Amino acid sequence: MSIDWLTAPCAQPDAALAEAAHAHQSQLTKPPGSLGMLEALAIQLASLQRTAQPAVDRVWISVFAGDHGVADEGVSAFPQVVTGEMVRNFATGGAAISVLARSLGADLEVVNLGTVNDPGEIPSVRRAIIAPSTANFCLGPAMTMTQLETALAVGAESVRTAKASGAQLFIGGEMGIANTTSAAALASALLNEPPSTLAGAGTGLNAAGVMHKVTVLERALALHVGATTPLEQLRCLGGFEIAALVGAYIAAAQSGIPVLVDGFITTTAALAAVTMRPDLRPWLLFAHRSKEHGHARLLRALDAESVLDLGLRLGEASGAATAVPLLRLACALHNGMATFAQAGVSTA
Amino acid sequence: MSIDWLTAPCAQPDAALAEAAHAHQSQLTKPPGSLGMLEALAIQLASLQRTAQPAVDRVWISVFAGDHGVADEGVSAFPQVVTGEMVRNFATGGAAISVLARSLGADLEVVNLGTVNDPGEIPSVRRAIIAPSTANFCLGPAMTMTQLETALAVGAESVRTAKASGAQLFIGGEMGIANTTSAAALASALLNEPPSTLAGAGTGLNAAGVMHKVTVLERALALHVGATTPLEQLRCLGGFEIAALVGAYIAAAQSGIPVLVDGFITTTAALAAVTMRPDLRPWLLFAHRSKEHGHARLLRALDAESVLDLGLRLGEASGAATAVPLLRLACALHNGMATFAQAGVSTA
Repeated sequence: MSIDWLTAPCAQPDAALAEAAHAHQSQLTKPPGSLGMLEALAIQLASLQRTAQPAVDRVWISVFAGDHGVADEGVSAFPQVVTGEMVRNFATGGAAISVLARSLGADLEVVNLGTVNDPGEIPSVRRAIIAPSTANFCLGPAMTMTQLETALAVGAESVRTAKASGAQLFIGGEMGIANTTSAAALASALLNEPPSTLAGAGTGLNAAGVMHKVTVLERALALHVGATTPLEQLRCLGGFEIAALVGAYIAAAQSGIPVLVDGFITTTAALAAVTMRPDLRPWLLFAHRSKEHGHARLLRALDAESVLDLGLRLGEASGAATAVPLLRLACALHNGMATFAQAGVSTA
Repeated sequence: MSIDWLTAPCAQPDAALAEAAHAHQSQLTKPPGSLGMLEALAIQLASLQRTAQPAVDRVWISVFAGDHGVADEGVSAFPQVVTGEMVRNFATGGAAISVLARSLGADLEVVNLGTVNDPGEIPSVRRAIIAPSTANFCLGPAMTMTQLETALAVGAESVRTAKASGAQLFIGGEMGIANTTSAAALASALLNEPPSTLAGAGTGLNAAGVMHKVTVLERALALHVGATTPLEQLRCLGGFEIAALVGAYIAAAQSGIPVLVDGFITTTAALAAVTMRPDLRPWLLFAHRSKEHGHARLLRALDAESVLDLGLRLGEASGAATAVPLLRLACALHNGMATFAQAGVSTA
């Protein structure tokens, strides 16, 4: 196991194709710019996919699940057994992301990196068990270096499978009771900001619960103040699924697959990944603005404009999946509309 | 011709089914409320469609086109010939709404209510010609009472066809050079607000162009200050396509078909329709917040939360069509997710 692969450069978006896509949009039978973000998405995808005809017909979704030692601190509204229960629910088709993936005709991979309540072997779930959970980061580092390297590699492996399947878009999702706490800790460390600006209700804490979560975060951040690189901050404060997302995002950009980022936890992973590899940033599209407190702050930190704002706060890649049809329509418009010349329509 | 049909009551949403849909959402394997607006949309559709299993598989889109006499005042960035040219483009498949309807598998009806540049008989375009254009409302009423009655009835006829085809959702769109001017005039009259809060760039006016548009609107509003009912305001300041939308929206609500409203002009028609028939309001879903100045004001006036905010400003029903996949996913989640009991997942 090694992390040398993290230092390989990301693929380069094609600036000439972006320029050509922009010029093409201005010829289509509509006032220039009148399709707003749908134009911007098509242009970005053309540049990333290196084609004049961008497409997101083949979508790959990997949902990474893992448990968190910090759940011992009572920071979640749901019990820890739910992580393992939801792994089964993803696989049997009853979860939100299962329904969405089916509706979209997307490939859905479920990856179990370690749950306290182990659902065991389940057909269609990839077992990549690192440990039943991370360690409680209020007491020590969440992961060993070997665990971190493994988690990063698990994410990269998902991207290799996605690429082999012909995926035109990679979506990462996550499941892990207490993982908004881990994400808030990691984001606080990455941004060097107090956790109160990043901690939220997660699956449904009340105000007192959020206050308790903030004190837990303050303890953890004080303990790990010596972690100053993003990799070390990820090791000390992250989770198996968050590290897998970081690895997946970097691998996707290295292999030239655009990434659609989901909500608060995945955006934290994206922030960690971009901090490690700034050349990753162009490969990220942002699906939605989550209702989770702190997500808006992360989007600002990444200078990211999100497609949707529907008050979602579920995770599992559900927000990213919900945005996929808009990317598809953006491509359909880009590729299918007539130009002013073709349609014999007068210009301004 | 008569407008007596406008006084027939709208259908009643089913409050018990809304309650049941809300209770069902709370049983699905996710934190309560975590699917945000996707939950609200499914609940509203269940109530309107009077079913526990809402669906928007069959979508009907009617695009109403008509020219405006007020174009003589130089209020548009595009020449008036474009209205007729775009009718042809809708029909031959090159326009944004053509591409979107195709992508969605939606029925697209194009209705020509009268264009100065008459494209003539075109297969798949419904000819319902009232006149080459409305009259310039800076000089007199835009329509005669007979013209208004006819336009309202043209819209209602589209809804009858939609209903016969089994449509589960009705979308109205519009095309008409200078129709943001007509819509701003009508909205100003309906809300009794100065036109500066409602006039915008339309297809692409610069700041001087918008200022000129406002002075045109001020002249028109002063001339028609005696029009105090929404019907008379619609006759004096509206357009054929705007009146057809008003008729369509009222007919849809009367016949129990949910309506997905598009952008600035269609929302103005919705405001006129709701002012005439307040019991229409529950039947309206709002697809997006347009970039056109004034749309946000109209949404507030209707106490409407929109699904999307993508900086769109095209019209043609393009924003509404873009939101259709989200309504479909909302229904798929509502109908397809497992409950906590079914999936054996623990609750909070």
